[in-house]
Amino acid sequence: MHDDYYRYKKLRAAIVGASGYAGTELLRLLLDHPEVKVTALYVSEQSVDAGKQIDEIDGRLCGRTDLKLQPLSDPEAAAENIEIVFLATEHEVSARLAPVFLEKCVKVFDLSGAFRLADPKLYPKHYGFEHAHPELLEDAVYALPEYVDEARLREANLISLPGCYPTASQLALRPLIDAGLLDLSMPPVIDAVSGVSGAGRKAKLSNAFCEVSLSAYGIFTHRHRPEIEEHLGGVPVIFNPHLGAFKRGILATITAKLAPGADEEAIERVYERAYTEHAFVRVRQGLPKLDDVVNQPYCDIGFKVSDTGYIVIVSAIDNLLKGAASQAVQAMNMRLELPEDTGFSV
Amino acid sequence: MHDDYYRYKKLRAAIVGASGYAGTELLRLLLDHPEVKVTALYVSEQSVDAGKQIDEIDGRLCGRTDLKLQPLSDPEAAAENIEIVFLATEHEVSARLAPVFLEKCVKVFDLSGAFRLADPKLYPKHYGFEHAHPELLEDAVYALPEYVDEARLREANLISLPGCYPTASQLALRPLIDAGLLDLSMPPVIDAVSGVSGAGRKAKLSNAFCEVSLSAYGIFTHRHRPEIEEHLGGVPVIFNPHLGAFKRGILATITAKLAPGADEEAIERVYERAYTEHAFVRVRQGLPKLDDVVNQPYCDIGFKVSDTGYIVIVSAIDNLLKGAASQAVQAMNMRLELPEDTGFSV
Amino acid sequence: MHDDYYRYKKLRAAIVGASGYAGTELLRLLLDHPEVKVTALYVSEQSVDAGKQIDEIDGRLCGRTDLKLQPLSDPEAAAENIEIVFLATEHEVSARLAPVFLEKCVKVFDLSGAFRLADPKLYPKHYGFEHAHPELLEDAVYALPEYVDEARLREANLISLPGCYPTASQLALRPLIDAGLLDLSMPPVIDAVSGVSGAGRKAKLSNAFCEVSLSAYGIFTHRHRPEIEEHLGGVPVIFNPHLGAFKRGILATITAKLAPGADEEAIERVYERAYTEHAFVRVRQGLPKLDDVVNQPYCDIGFKVSDTGYIVIVSAIDNLLKGAASQAVQAMNMRLELPEDTGFSV
Amino acid sequence: MHDDYYRYKKLRAAIVGASGYAGTELLRLLLDHPEVKVTALYVSEQSVDAGKQIDEIDGRLCGRTDLKLQPLSDPEAAAENIEIVFLATEHEVSARLAPVFLEKCVKVFDLSGAFRLADPKLYPKHYGFEHAHPELLEDAVYALPEYVDEARLREANLISLPGCYPTASQLALRPLIDAGLLDLSMPPVIDAVSGVSGAGRKAKLSNAFCEVSLSAYGIFTHRHRPEIEEHLGGVPVIFNPHLGAFKRGILATITAKLAPGADEEAIERVYERAYTEHAFVRVRQGLPKLDDVVNQPYCDIGFKVSDTGYIVIVSAIDNLLKGAASQAVQAMNMRLELPEDTGFSV
Repeated sequence: MHDDYYRYKKLRAAIVGASGYAGTELLRLLLDHPEVKVTALYVSEQSVDAGKQIDEIDGRLCGRTDLKLQPLSDPEAAAENIEIVFLATEHEVSARLAPVFLEKCVKVFDLSGAFRLADPKLYPKHYGFEHAHPELLEDAVYALPEYVDEARLREANLISLPGCYPTASQLALRPLIDAGLLDLSMPPVIDAVSGVSGAGRKAKLSNAFCEVSLSAYGIFTHRHRPEIEEHLGGVPVIFNPHLGAFKRGILATITAKLAPGADEEAIERVYERAYTEHAFVRVRQGLPKLDDVVNQPYCDIGFKVSDTGYIVIVSAIDNLLKGAASQAVQAMNMRLELPEDTGFSV
Repeated sequence: MHDDYYRYKKLRAAIVGASGYAGTELLRLLLDHPEVKVTALYVSEQSVDAGKQIDEIDGRLCGRTDLKLQPLSDPEAAAENIEIVFLATEHEVSARLAPVFLEKCVKVFDLSGAFRLADPKLYPKHYGFEHAHPELLEDAVYALPEYVDEARLREANLISLPGCYPTASQLALRPLIDAGLLDLSMPPVIDAVSGVSGAGRKAKLSNAFCEVSLSAYGIFTHRHRPEIEEHLGGVPVIFNPHLGAFKRGILATITAKLAPGADEEAIERVYERAYTEHAFVRVRQGLPKLDDVVNQPYCDIGFKVSDTGYIVIVSAIDNLLKGAASQAVQAMNMRLELPEDTGFSV
Repeated sequence: MHDDYYRYKKLRAAIVGASGYAGTELLRLLLDHPEVKVTALYVSEQSVDAGKQIDEIDGRLCGRTDLKLQPLSDPEAAAENIEIVFLATEHEVSARLAPVFLEKCVKVFDLSGAFRLADPKLYPKHYGFEHAHPELLEDAVYALPEYVDEARLREANLISLPGCYPTASQLALRPLIDAGLLDLSMPPVIDAVSGVSGAGRKAKLSNAFCEVSLSAYGIFTHRHRPEIEEHLGGVPVIFNPHLGAFKRGILATITAKLAPGADEEAIERVYERAYTEHAFVRVRQGLPKLDDVVNQPYCDIGFKVSDTGYIVIVSAIDNLLKGAASQAVQAMNMRLELPEDTGFSV
Repeated sequence: MHDDYYRYKKLRAAIVGASGYAGTELLRLLLDHPEVKVTALYVSEQSVDAGKQIDEIDGRLCGRTDLKLQPLSDPEAAAENIEIVFLATEHEVSARLAPVFLEKCVKVFDLSGAFRLADPKLYPKHYGFEHAHPELLEDAVYALPEYVDEARLREANLISLPGCYPTASQLALRPLIDAGLLDLSMPPVIDAVSGVSGAGRKAKLSNAFCEVSLSAYGIFTHRHRPEIEEHLGGVPVIFNPHLGAFKRGILATITAKLAPGADEEAIERVYERAYTEHAFVRVRQGLPKLDDVVNQPYCDIGFKVSDTGYIVIVSAIDNLLKGAASQAVQAMNMRLELPEDTGFSV
């Protein structure tokens, strides 16, 4: 299935944090990529997973690769033989590792929050640590593929991937805000439910099967709120994240006030225009349901308009794909000047 | 387990629609009630369940009663030997049946929407039928137990039980609205997720196990919106109902704008005051999760306040209990001048 | 709801391991018990839960008790003011604690495996520790309520409750084996699926929501196999336990060979006779499904017979109730010479 | 994503029963196939789905094809412009349709049970209908890809695909039986749990979300038992199917008695030999869990051996893929003399 015919000319990539849920999805996607080949899988030095076969972590990968999980004991050495690295690591770890790979001219695709906010002062508040490399924040390109400045992306070496909730939220709101169709005197209310994989592959009581039950968390304090607000151009939002008792996916239901004159037709036109050139955003006739996008690289968007001047938009993604791994591959494709859907078989 | 010592003086009750999810919960609750005894279980004449033992419908009830499901072929006769009837029936059926029982001086507890709205003209629009007995709408008492006028309830013979979403919504919003703590220039945004039992015990493709997936529905059109608005005293709300892939429970996340001066302390005081005398609303320190209330007669309420003047309230109920069956028993207790928690063992 | 009128004459009970899943179920059941009152809730000294309100652990219990979780720092002192203790603790902890309470004439109901096997030499092999008090194994009464010697139980002070799988298995097999209806030359094959709560309330990766997926485990090595075999009177079985992606319940499907002449009628008669006097075993017409018993104190049993001489028995329990907490209360009732269903409202 | 460059030389295929769960999976797989192109999607004439876009049925397919669901009103005409047809239809419908397509020299891949049993007399008993074309049973090739006679398959025009349970069961048992490693005096006991999609996309109460709960069904009577027994060469088995509360996948746990001398090493060798040349059976070190194969075309197999002479084999598949759609594509590839994994990207 994985043709190695062209192996000699494929770009080599490493995944750091390869035992996490986004890490294994990255590997799965890249095993089918025609231009990029994963050559190393890293976990932290202390990880109990170091030395394991990847299919001990994710049984779906049995028989698909011989790569083992290695401890990342010498990042400089790891950087030697690769052109690309994916950091599917904790925020603080990404902040420390990125410059090591950049120094060796490795293109860095960071799936953490380490480079998503422009202002270093926000890190202690929202992420709980002092940013180790604030000087890099300026150079990092925030690559929401449908909205990134492609010219800038093509020259970037530090690519910061959006968070999962911010992806679902921005893809729903950006077209309307850009077109002036919303009355922002009422902050858009983003209610979103995420599967448990969003909390990572960790032995925590709050992740335990019997403890998980539909619930709100991080109300007014979740770190994805400032990310959403910054990348919507400074629009305040109310962000109500929830944990749902399912494994994968995010469904965001967004309520906003329409600007005078904004009607269904105008909204539809604006969405169509925004995404017609993009493979992975689908504007739906009705409202998407979660299963439409689980295990899929898509963001599905639908909406309803009231006769009292409000809109409700529903946006659905797989948090591990369009909210993480497939978005990273999509951004990588664009960085490499390939069609954004290269290597995806859906 | 069910002491029949006092049977001779128990009031006799029938359940119409006894094979539905609310019907079997009603039966389960009343099997333990010290003052009321279920003496008949009815289904519609055409029902395939007519003649069945109740444990063929709900295995939990095996061995707990000998009552069989009977077709309700002669409602007048059915009304003869009972003092109380619960209508867990379709809206239109309730509208037709209520006067038959009322005529025979049977107290009617209606779990459908047939008597929830004051204006008969709303029925064609929101329920899809012309109300057969609009003259009864005025007499019906809408019995949200924590807010009903008890004096009026004690004289009522037609008691209309609130819908599931309206229960969760009103219990969260009423105290704050009554105390003037909300700025209603922004309509409260009610995002709620319900388990599939809310759709009833029916063979419909949309209820099929593999078809259910987290999704929004009825945006701007759900019939519970006018009910909520009417019983909040005419406050417009935005109501975003969702179906979740679980069996029971509703979690409602409500975003509202605070009136100037409304702070956490004032809000807490208002909630405490509202529910301190009531057994089945629990004001929580943090935010409730769904499992806290599933299989429980409680509505749990928690909230968070932002420093920008907004509040998010989370309200959780079991849609079949506080959203239907246990609420009906609670209202019945109050009607019978018993403590509202009579017969509940939690 | 919890009448304290008779409090002065209730027996006092403590629960050790009260923050675990069986612990909170025990508390929930005993809050409604007319003769026993829980007066203390203990966790281990190192537990992060020490000092917490119980509703921080299990939100269902909010408002139902003021008892806090205390560290069990001085078991002797804890034994002073109680007549009954439930040990919902790790096997090794139970083995150490039981004699402390016994010394103070406290009746000990142990939900662990510490006293289930007669032979102390089996503990290192199956439980991984050397039994601290092998001398007690002889005195401990193994209290499967439907099969225990009641005279012996009424004099016992150390009552060992069966494991969850052994409960489902024995209740299905004992009547047939006792009546000689099985051909035991083929070992009965017990395939059982348990909800995740069976693994306890722990932060373990294998319990994490996204890691759980239907799977077999402990094939040929599970410690409940020797327990089943011993209490079936030395009958070898093949025991195939599985973990299922649900919270509560066990469904056991048991295949066995019939002895010559054993037919459906004989089997039905034997089951009827075995359980007609017992409140919590229900012999069903068809085969039970899991939801029939979840949150219920019952074991439901159904069976099918082939025309080739085999029987398949399906046995269902809630692992936390009939497999743990409600069974302990049932055994306690019998020990106290109360009807076995005292305090249960189902 | 789906390159149509080679469209002109692709074989044309139709899917009958395209709105069912196997039907949409077939379409998803074939959209990526390099040699075959789906040119028509049919549903029955009475189907409410006739005329719909496929993404109204399965949202995952939004944007992937313009094909609409057509009523199959004229099968002869439908057969005109295709080389291949997949019948994902009811058993009786397949029995009637197959000869229509065969007459037009269309290769028929039937996913129903219509051609799985050699003896027409078994159809009334196990399938509830008299076979309309018993003369075809002889010609039909039962294509379990890993065991089919490839020479015969390459000449076949009527290819019958195995059932889902029989696939999981045979792949686990065939190597051991063929090698004489089992003592068949004890019938292998096959306990299997299937996701609800196995019951098809239908509005039935037994499929309703709230009705589904882990349960056994079809004990001693399921129609897959005679299929398993026939294709194992006449070996009697005990087959205990279960419905689980999940959407996709089958986990089969099989208990069998080992022949004298059969040890772990011999078993491992036999499995290795059986599947080393096959892409879609993976012999695992440990035991597979269900999620390892969901959405995957694999059958994963693991086993444990006791020191008392028994073996427990666990076999896992996705019932809609290796149990239906991907197996059909795999068989089609072999029929077309392509590598069996052509068009699979995993």
